[in-house]
Amino acid sequence: MTASPDALRQAPLYRVLHALAKGETSSEALTGACLAAIARDGHLNAWTWVDAAGALAAARASDDRRAEGKPLGRLDGVPIAVTDAFDIAGMPTSLGLPGHPGLAEQDAHVVRRLRGAGAVFLGKTNLDEAAFGTVGRNPHFGDVRNPVLPDRAAGGASGGSAAALAAGHAVVALGTDTLGATRIPAAFCGLVGHKPTLGELSARGMAPALRRLDCPGLLARAVQDIGLVLPVLAGYDAGDPRSRKRRVPLAPPDWVPGELKAGVVADLSALGVDAAVVENFSAVMARVAAVFGSALPVALEIAPLEVAATRRAALLLMEAEILAAHEARLGGASTRLRWLLDFALRKSAADAARAHRRLDGHVVQVRRLFEQFDVLLLPTVASPPPAWGAEEPANLADLTALASLAGCPALSLPLPGGLGLQLVGAPGSDLRLIELAGILASVADTGE
Amino acid sequence: MTASPDALRQAPLYRVLHALAKGETSSEALTGACLAAIARDGHLNAWTWVDAAGALAAARASDDRRAEGKPLGRLDGVPIAVTDAFDIAGMPTSLGLPGHPGLAEQDAHVVRRLRGAGAVFLGKTNLDEAAFGTVGRNPHFGDVRNPVLPDRAAGGASGGSAAALAAGHAVVALGTDTLGATRIPAAFCGLVGHKPTLGELSARGMAPALRRLDCPGLLARAVQDIGLVLPVLAGYDAGDPRSRKRRVPLAPPDWVPGELKAGVVADLSALGVDAAVVENFSAVMARVAAVFGSALPVALEIAPLEVAATRRAALLLMEAEILAAHEARLGGASTRLRWLLDFALRKSAADAARAHRRLDGHVVQVRRLFEQFDVLLLPTVASPPPAWGAEEPANLADLTALASLAGCPALSLPLPGGLGLQLVGAPGSDLRLIELAGILASVADTGE
Repeated sequence: MTASPDALRQAPLYRVLHALAKGETSSEALTGACLAAIARDGHLNAWTWVDAAGALAAARASDDRRAEGKPLGRLDGVPIAVTDAFDIAGMPTSLGLPGHPGLAEQDAHVVRRLRGAGAVFLGKTNLDEAAFGTVGRNPHFGDVRNPVLPDRAAGGASGGSAAALAAGHAVVALGTDTLGATRIPAAFCGLVGHKPTLGELSARGMAPALRRLDCPGLLARAVQDIGLVLPVLAGYDAGDPRSRKRRVPLAPPDWVPGELKAGVVADLSALGVDAAVVENFSAVMARVAAVFGSALPVALEIAPLEVAATRRAALLLMEAEILAAHEARLGGASTRLRWLLDFALRKSAADAARAHRRLDGHVVQVRRLFEQFDVLLLPTVASPPPAWGAEEPANLADLTALASLAGCPALSLPLPGGLGLQLVGAPGSDLRLIELAGILASVADTGE
Repeated sequence: MTASPDALRQAPLYRVLHALAKGETSSEALTGACLAAIARDGHLNAWTWVDAAGALAAARASDDRRAEGKPLGRLDGVPIAVTDAFDIAGMPTSLGLPGHPGLAEQDAHVVRRLRGAGAVFLGKTNLDEAAFGTVGRNPHFGDVRNPVLPDRAAGGASGGSAAALAAGHAVVALGTDTLGATRIPAAFCGLVGHKPTLGELSARGMAPALRRLDCPGLLARAVQDIGLVLPVLAGYDAGDPRSRKRRVPLAPPDWVPGELKAGVVADLSALGVDAAVVENFSAVMARVAAVFGSALPVALEIAPLEVAATRRAALLLMEAEILAAHEARLGGASTRLRWLLDFALRKSAADAARAHRRLDGHVVQVRRLFEQFDVLLLPTVASPPPAWGAEEPANLADLTALASLAGCPALSLPLPGGLGLQLVGAPGSDLRLIELAGILASVADTGE
């Protein structure tokens, strides 16, 4: 039996791995189909750099390994999209900025791990300028278009990775998710997005944005794909000062779903969440409540967390750190970006210290929440995707920031209309979230 | 057999615990002897607050527990000195600043753990104003005097705890050690000082100075006393955003000392270390080299680490964070302190971000060092104690900051003349450092 590369490039990873293992397709054929789709879909502005020759050579090498019965690792031959905030050796890292950054000499740590597992790198995907944004706007590479909802934004910052995956340019994708930059475009483009527990994945070689929160993110078509890729990426990295050697493995998924204590965010309207999102979320909750068996979900008000204000404090730190880390690259940045970042020059080091204290307070508050609940359920985005090219809504990352600011893992399941259902767990509970998300996806109409 | 309380208040903790367990003395007698010594030694300016009635009541309660055969924990009845940067419920936390901060409602986490083990709190010890300094100068409570070298500074910031312990006011003492504030006064006052692995001890309820480095420290008369107190203090604290639940226990002391790879800092003169300190350190190294058996110590140059410049970057963050955390308390601060702290108002949030990046680089550099060595040996202080009341030497904390900036544990053994021999290990190696320090103390004339 053979499988059409054009069907497989749009299939979940677990299906592709099966096809590669059974010889139903070759990595070269699959990679070729991805590259052809990328070439056709230039109007999506999904890519900043495509390395067709390198990808095909890597695909052929993978096929040779499989022919010898010696695949390199779990992802051998799988074409992957990587947000252009990660270094891939031999490619430039634009970070969505103009100019000539030169070719990266080393892979980012997560890229190196993907390479070690045999992944095929197609190139780099587009993102908000300096990865600072939530809708995928980029004046240098073009605003990313949403392949699923064509007149809508793809989301950001990692909008290119989401658009590429939604359009079948790759089988899985890597994004950044400092405050929601993977989960927001995942929701907008009908994909699963996962932000791992902070610190489990090295952020070395990922362009710095906010050191205490910077985190790679995963985009996939199916929940179980996340579970396949996450263990490849996780690991200690001596070169990342935030990575700690004395880790223990992620907690195993040993929950009994019927006994789960779930908190369901209940005061969405008071938080300024769009009425359509609130209605949609309530309907989904009604459908999934039965999953929680005797431990029915408990309504939870999160307004006291004041996430929006804490997210704004984080933005000051992000502006300051983007200025500090990428000073030399900002010469050609848009006036708008410079204006946003320069805010950090008008704020003092003491203001930055106050922002850190505010974030510290959030960490402790969210820890207390998880003394009551195993999982928190809330929408991923506060509003449907805005029109392509429109100004970004101010509160778009509020619901994703809740988990980010506390270092918690969070997984977004796609809902129709560019919305998402978000599961947030205590640090270390990634595998449990993935298991639960798989159950919810089968119960709710998550469109997955 | 009985033991004189006046002898015991100057004895190592392990001796005192023996005496209490055997009924050779009572906690009340010992606490009374400490309080009498405190009253006699007012000229040392070692204390900011003494709670004689509370301490005696606690001591009597401890004696009652022992009489019933039900001691509360490892430290039951032991009089302890605590730097006035930690909250003790019912006492004010001056942080060396004037004004009326009110009485703390809760114990700092480490204080609560000490209380849970039965320790008797005598009061709070003096420190540099806002814990910002290295020699124990305080315009509000008086400069701390060195009981061992009376015309010399006691060191800081936790100079009061060191002076109190050296004068026999308590049996062990708690300090802060963000950049060296426990190890410096330990060296100056002839004591053992330990800064644990960053994050192993909660810093909640310790006045914030530099959130990413803030760390409680231990002062004792004997190395093995550190090993008795450290396990009492270590533990996860949900209320400290820097504390991580998924810790693993401190590595056991399973080194074979004769096979230890030791790095000995060799370019002290180039770093501006005082000639007398360099000579003293060389002589000590000659005496202890045999401990390392076949794996002779390797000379190591640390100038490339540029610790002094990184410590200055840390100082900017500390100034900013002291301003942010203690704004309401700084009204009565000295002009000198305000002038120092206000530096952070003239620096931008982007400057603070640059400082964090510099610290990140140090973490990675020091991790690489510990791929070559099990332990680093260097002096604790760059110069002998300055005269009492003199301006502090600018580089006094450079040699302690090396470990602090990287989150490493460090232990200082006393050497004659107010100097110290410092052992630095990789994060998590505290128990190994304590074991090795015990061996070195028995070989070198460390004055312990």
